[in-house]
Amino acid sequence: MSAATGTTALPAAEVAKTARNASFTIKSLPGSARDLALDAIYDALAAYKDDILAANARDMEAAEKLVDEGRLSRSLVKRLDLSRGGKYEDMLQGIKDVRGLEDPVGKTTMATKLDDGLTLHRYTTPIGTLLIIFEARPEVIANISSLAIKSGNAAILKGGKESTHSFAAIANVISEALSSTDIPPGAIQLVQSREAVKDLLDQDAYIDLVIPRGGNDLVRYIKDNTKIPVMGHADGLCATYIHEDADVRIATDVVVDGKTDYPAACNATETLIVHSKALTTVLPAVVTALQAKGVAVRCDAESHGALHAVPDTALSAAGKTILQTATTEDFTTEFLDLVIAVRTVNTLQEAVAHINAHGSGHTDCIVTSSETAADEFCRMVDSAGVYWNASTRFADGYRYGFGTEVGISTNKVHARGPVGLEGLMIYKYVVRGQGHTVGMYGSGGRKYLHEKID
Amino acid sequence: MSAATGTTALPAAEVAKTARNASFTIKSLPGSARDLALDAIYDALAAYKDDILAANARDMEAAEKLVDEGRLSRSLVKRLDLSRGGKYEDMLQGIKDVRGLEDPVGKTTMATKLDDGLTLHRYTTPIGTLLIIFEARPEVIANISSLAIKSGNAAILKGGKESTHSFAAIANVISEALSSTDIPPGAIQLVQSREAVKDLLDQDAYIDLVIPRGGNDLVRYIKDNTKIPVMGHADGLCATYIHEDADVRIATDVVVDGKTDYPAACNATETLIVHSKALTTVLPAVVTALQAKGVAVRCDAESHGALHAVPDTALSAAGKTILQTATTEDFTTEFLDLVIAVRTVNTLQEAVAHINAHGSGHTDCIVTSSETAADEFCRMVDSAGVYWNASTRFADGYRYGFGTEVGISTNKVHARGPVGLEGLMIYKYVVRGQGHTVGMYGSGGRKYLHEKID
Repeated sequence: MSAATGTTALPAAEVAKTARNASFTIKSLPGSARDLALDAIYDALAAYKDDILAANARDMEAAEKLVDEGRLSRSLVKRLDLSRGGKYEDMLQGIKDVRGLEDPVGKTTMATKLDDGLTLHRYTTPIGTLLIIFEARPEVIANISSLAIKSGNAAILKGGKESTHSFAAIANVISEALSSTDIPPGAIQLVQSREAVKDLLDQDAYIDLVIPRGGNDLVRYIKDNTKIPVMGHADGLCATYIHEDADVRIATDVVVDGKTDYPAACNATETLIVHSKALTTVLPAVVTALQAKGVAVRCDAESHGALHAVPDTALSAAGKTILQTATTEDFTTEFLDLVIAVRTVNTLQEAVAHINAHGSGHTDCIVTSSETAADEFCRMVDSAGVYWNASTRFADGYRYGFGTEVGISTNKVHARGPVGLEGLMIYKYVVRGQGHTVGMYGSGGRKYLHEKID
Repeated sequence: MSAATGTTALPAAEVAKTARNASFTIKSLPGSARDLALDAIYDALAAYKDDILAANARDMEAAEKLVDEGRLSRSLVKRLDLSRGGKYEDMLQGIKDVRGLEDPVGKTTMATKLDDGLTLHRYTTPIGTLLIIFEARPEVIANISSLAIKSGNAAILKGGKESTHSFAAIANVISEALSSTDIPPGAIQLVQSREAVKDLLDQDAYIDLVIPRGGNDLVRYIKDNTKIPVMGHADGLCATYIHEDADVRIATDVVVDGKTDYPAACNATETLIVHSKALTTVLPAVVTALQAKGVAVRCDAESHGALHAVPDTALSAAGKTILQTATTEDFTTEFLDLVIAVRTVNTLQEAVAHINAHGSGHTDCIVTSSETAADEFCRMVDSAGVYWNASTRFADGYRYGFGTEVGISTNKVHARGPVGLEGLMIYKYVVRGQGHTVGMYGSGGRKYLHEKID
């Protein structure tokens, strides 16, 4: 795309090739040049706020109509709206926050003296070319553009159709802003046509990593349709396990927060696993608190029976009557809503096995007073985040102190859990010699020193 | 597989599921238990040397026959032979070397105080379940089994058909040895049927990483037929660039070693890029030395012309007559043989552009007397290894000081270049609280501390 036109309509192979070529330039720019580009984007988005909000209003109008027709969910419209609750200012602040992070490029992560006059260094480098595909949330464009520039990566951004006008307006402003900086045109490209996605996913010769930001269906579609590595998560099926010795207050606080703080989030608790010995001692208080927050509680036979049998002082008669029965499917469902499934186990090992078999490897918690039990749980549960007496909702790059978040990954390679700038980096090895050859070493020849360089 | 049967004939889904279940156990064993298992393998392979070599002799016999019939290459037979040149002892020593490495599991790589009583730790963990597919070289079974056990991963190993008997013999010995240790049966499974590969590549629900060890065709087939992340390299198209100010001796040593030390290796130099100003000053000596080693030199028009025009004192008349003409294809061919393609450029930038466009991102070298030129080359060339005045053949885990090597990766995510044990690791986050909820933070509530813990 030319810097002035905002979104591009070039064929996918051209877009990808252009991005890759630009990646060679942006990855070798000094951090100061990348920071100046972030300033330029910040200033331009601040200056053109009214224009962008006007474009956003057009998207909102179209979306409201679709909601009235029952073709779009109310929550999506909320995510689309840039004008409310300081969202625009948050977007701007996000750019400043990213600018303020330490430059991740060119850090030395290994230095070895291989021999006299022969050294090995490992330096962090940008991955190269990213493809980021997202749904509603138009502010993601500014967010991801900032992250890509800060990390020295080229990025191709593909937004959802609901944010067409917002996307084009922000894209125009960003492109215009970057045209006065050292960032090469093509380093940040914005693609809007729906057909483009499939073609872009074929560009494994030029694109190094795909980052989907959206629901299950989007992520699954992408994983099924590309040979490019994908970083992200399809499901967030998080469980909280109440051990036999759990503190009632902690169990209640952690489960209620995990379930109700933001039920649509991927780190919300979906499954409640309860030790059989806690069914009558801890669970009634937890269920009472959940019901008070409007949560539908779906119980397996054992917990259902136990809850019905407790005195009305532990769980009210009204609370008992609204208990639901869990199906097998409920234990593999990401409700993203005020619904929780309750499963009873007789041992910690059974809880671990349930999580490893049915969970999504995102974030899982144990509530217990025993450090030994907590350690075993944290060691045995094979998830990106394993928690002891803390809400699953803490799984978030900002809360972890990463300053910002590229996304949350349930991958088993490269990056796992909340991913900060580090997840957009890889490294290269640099060997510096003075005419050294491998023929000089081995049987009777020279020996490698392999001394660490400080 | 039962530990006693050696290789398994179970369906791929069963093999993969069993491996994943075993991975939960092996990843939580202490380092001492994993080291004892390595001792057991070492002792058993030492004790059963004669039996294994007898089995290997049967494979050799069959292979020799195929060579005579022209259906197998002589070099493959060499790779198959376990009886020659201390190869068996090297295999045993390799197990000891892996045992001697630092335990990579459970290292703390991040520790943050999020708030009073709320901490975040990041610990290294095994990836989980590996699928390793390799061709000839039966010793890889011992090598990879050791690496998997040391790193706490479960592994499924699939060997090539040429090593059928060696593979079964080694597999039997390893399985038998492990049956007396804490390593669960199923943590190391050995699969031999050819049809199994495709089915195993479908097991992305259970297998976390595929590592192919073999030629281009194998790697490409695997990359094209799985959704599981693949770590490795298809091509090793390494270039050495002779800058205008290159030292003649260094250029000669580095190029001759890069090309001839082991031409079939992935880190051998395949392309020689020469600055036009070095065509008559440096190149003749380099070509003379290459020709003395029997290397066929395929020149582009400019280098061909220049070499023909130099006096016979610089390049002999005989040397001139055997110069070949390079085709366009020669610059994208991994010869793996005593052949090198020569390309002329007028600037360092042109050399960089050639490498980034035609290379495979493996290892590329500049020969120059200028630190500035070297820095620019190392910054701009987008390869896993970028070298200054050193042979591309140094790209190797042992030479880098990693003790051993899982393989060499040209990936842009997770691990790049020679991969040691570190490449078989990922991490998990552990949050420890006292009933903390995210609802406690933000607008008017508590603030995150994000203090580094020593």
